[in-house]
Amino acid sequence: MMRWVLTVAMLVLAALGATGAPAAERRKIIIDQDAFEGPGLQPILMLLNDPAIDVLGITIVSGDGWQPEETAATLRMLELVKRTDIPVIAGATFPLVNSKARNARREALYGALPYKGAWMDSWPAYNTIKRREPHAPDVVAPMAEGMPTTKPLPVSAAEFLLAMSRKYPGQVTILAMGPLTNLALAQRLDDGFAGRIREIVTEGGNFVGRDLAKAQDEFAMQVAFNPRMSFNHFWDPEAAHIVFTSPWPKLTLVTGDASDPTVGTQALLDRATASGRPVAAYVKRIAQPGYPLWDETQAAAWRDPAIVTARGRLAMDVDLMPGANYGALLTWPAGKGPGLGERDVDLIYAVDVPKVEAMFVDLVGR
Amino acid sequence: MMRWVLTVAMLVLAALGATGAPAAERRKIIIDQDAFEGPGLQPILMLLNDPAIDVLGITIVSGDGWQPEETAATLRMLELVKRTDIPVIAGATFPLVNSKARNARREALYGALPYKGAWMDSWPAYNTIKRREPHAPDVVAPMAEGMPTTKPLPVSAAEFLLAMSRKYPGQVTILAMGPLTNLALAQRLDDGFAGRIREIVTEGGNFVGRDLAKAQDEFAMQVAFNPRMSFNHFWDPEAAHIVFTSPWPKLTLVTGDASDPTVGTQALLDRATASGRPVAAYVKRIAQPGYPLWDETQAAAWRDPAIVTARGRLAMDVDLMPGANYGALLTWPAGKGPGLGERDVDLIYAVDVPKVEAMFVDLVGR
Repeated sequence: MMRWVLTVAMLVLAALGATGAPAAERRKIIIDQDAFEGPGLQPILMLLNDPAIDVLGITIVSGDGWQPEETAATLRMLELVKRTDIPVIAGATFPLVNSKARNARREALYGALPYKGAWMDSWPAYNTIKRREPHAPDVVAPMAEGMPTTKPLPVSAAEFLLAMSRKYPGQVTILAMGPLTNLALAQRLDDGFAGRIREIVTEGGNFVGRDLAKAQDEFAMQVAFNPRMSFNHFWDPEAAHIVFTSPWPKLTLVTGDASDPTVGTQALLDRATASGRPVAAYVKRIAQPGYPLWDETQAAAWRDPAIVTARGRLAMDVDLMPGANYGALLTWPAGKGPGLGERDVDLIYAVDVPKVEAMFVDLVGR
Repeated sequence: MMRWVLTVAMLVLAALGATGAPAAERRKIIIDQDAFEGPGLQPILMLLNDPAIDVLGITIVSGDGWQPEETAATLRMLELVKRTDIPVIAGATFPLVNSKARNARREALYGALPYKGAWMDSWPAYNTIKRREPHAPDVVAPMAEGMPTTKPLPVSAAEFLLAMSRKYPGQVTILAMGPLTNLALAQRLDDGFAGRIREIVTEGGNFVGRDLAKAQDEFAMQVAFNPRMSFNHFWDPEAAHIVFTSPWPKLTLVTGDASDPTVGTQALLDRATASGRPVAAYVKRIAQPGYPLWDETQAAAWRDPAIVTARGRLAMDVDLMPGANYGALLTWPAGKGPGLGERDVDLIYAVDVPKVEAMFVDLVGR
C-alpha cells in the first residue's frame, strides 16, 4: 500500500519535474474539464496564456464528449501551442452511478433531455456547434490536426488531484468545468482532500431568469424551462452531491445567468486571434462563433473577481431521487438547509460582459 | 345509486332555485378557492360584482387555511355583502395523499418550506399578512364580523362541480385559486367531468425570473429560489398531477411572474373602496396593503385576455417523487412530454399591471 502510494507520487512528481518548481507567487490551478475537440479547449487556452497562473495540470472527465477522445484532443492541442510542459491526466470515463442506459429510461418516464453530451445518439439539425458524430466511449477517431504523440500521465485524475493537494496544501484552486466525477472520486479516496484545496470554482444552474421568447430550439428550452437542471449535474448527480457536501474552504458556482449574456461573435473571435501567436492561431482554427463564452466566463470570474456584478450565497445540493428532477440543483437560504451535509455556496449571477470579452481577447491574443 | 344521484342533483338545483336561471349570455364560473378570512376573499368579491359574470358557486378547499373556517368566512362574507344567492360548497379538508405529518418529514429530509398555509405551526415575525393562529382542521373560531347563519350546500364540492358540469356542459369555467383537490376528486368520480368543463384557469410557478435581491424573507426566498414549487401544488401534488393530466378543453396557468408585479398598495385599496357600497365596504374592512394581487390577477387575466402581455405554451405535470421536488412543476416544450398523460398548458407570463389595478378598483367599487 505505502509502496503504491509512493509510486503514484513519484510518477506525478517525475512528470512535473521537467518544468521545475513554479514561482511562489503564481496562482496554482488545476483545470478539470470535459475538453471536447474545439470549443471545449478554448477556456483552457485562455488560462494557459496568463503568466500569473500556474496550470498544474489538466484533468479530463467525460461529459460533452468521452474522456479518451477529450484526452487526445487536449494532448494534441498542447503540442500545437507548444505547451507540452503542462500535464494532462485522464479521468473518469463513466459517471459514478448514472449511465446512458439509465438516462434513456429516465427520459422515457420523465421526458427528453435534448442535450446530453456524449450520450447523444445524433445531433439535431438546429445544433450550431460542430461536433463529432456520436460513438462508443473508447473510440478516438483521427483528428484533422493529427493525433498526439505525447501521453497523459500514467495515473488517474483523482490520484493527480490528491497528489497536488498534498504537495501544495491550501494553495490549489480547481476550476471544475465539466461533470464532477473526478473531484468526487478524489474526496472519497481521501477524506482530507477537500480541506487541502484552496477553492473550487464550478458552474451550473440559472437563477435570475431568461428571455423565454429566445428559447427557440430544444437545447435552449431545456435550460430555459428547467433552470436548475444543468448538464454537468445530471450527467453524474451523485458526484455533484459529493462535491456539494464536501468541506472545501470555498466553493463558488458561476451560474448560467452570468455566462449566457456573453457571445463569442465572429468579430470578437477575430480580435482575439489577430495576433497570430500559437494560442491565437489555434483558437482561430477551432473557434465557432455564435454562442456564449460559458466556461470562459467561469475562468474570468475566478481570475478577476472585480468583474462580478451580482453575487449571492445559498445552501445547495443536488436532487438524487431517480425521477424527473434527478440531478437538479436544490437550494435553501444560506445556513437553512436540512443539515444533511449541504453547505453554503457562493453564487455569481452576473458579470461585466465587456470585461469578460476584453479578458478573452487579451489572453488568447498573447 | 340512481336515487342518490338524483338526490344530489335535486339538492343542488333546489339551492340554486332562488336565483332562477341566469341570463344565457353571462359567463358561468365556479370559484374554487382556499378562501381564508381576509385577503383570501378579495378575488371572490371582485368577481361577484361583475354583472356579466354568473358565479354558479364558490367551492372551498383547504390550503391557506382549513376548509371549515374558510367555508364559514365565505358564508359570512356573502351575508355581509348581501349575496347569499351564491351557493358555498364545502370541499376537501385534506389533500389526497399528503398530510401535515408527511410534509414535516419531507422538510426534515429536504429542507424547510417556510410558507405552508394551514400546516403552519406559528407565524414568523416577518409575515405581513394578518392571519389566525394555527389550529386544528375542525376548529372554527369566532370571527370579529360574527358567525354565519347561512349554511353551505349539503353536498361536497366535487359533487357540486359534477352537477354543474352536467347542467351546463361546455359552459362552465373554473377559476381554481387554491390546491386542486376538489377538481381531482370530481374527475376521478366521473371520467367525463373534464370534457364537460369549458376552461380551467389556475395559477402557480415562476418562469421568467425575479429580482433575487428583493427576496429578503424566507417566504419570498421560498419562491425565488425554488421557482417551480408553488404552495397550491406541494399541498396536494397528486391532485395537481390529476388536473394536469385531465382532458380539459383548455387549461391556463397564470404564473407568479404575472401576478408578482402587482401591488395592493394602501392608495389602490383606498381608491377601490371609496364608493362605500357593500363590497367596497367589506373589502375596506378585510384588505391588507403591501402584497401582490395574486388571485385577483388570475381573475383579471381570465376576465379580459387583452390585458395579457406575454404568453407561452408548455407540456406540464407535477413531480410526484417523494423527495425534495415533491410537488414541483415539470415542463417540456409543447407536445414534447414523455407521453404519460401530460398535456399542453397555456401560460401567462405577464399582464398589463395598471389595467389589472384599474379592473380591481372598478369591480370592487361597484
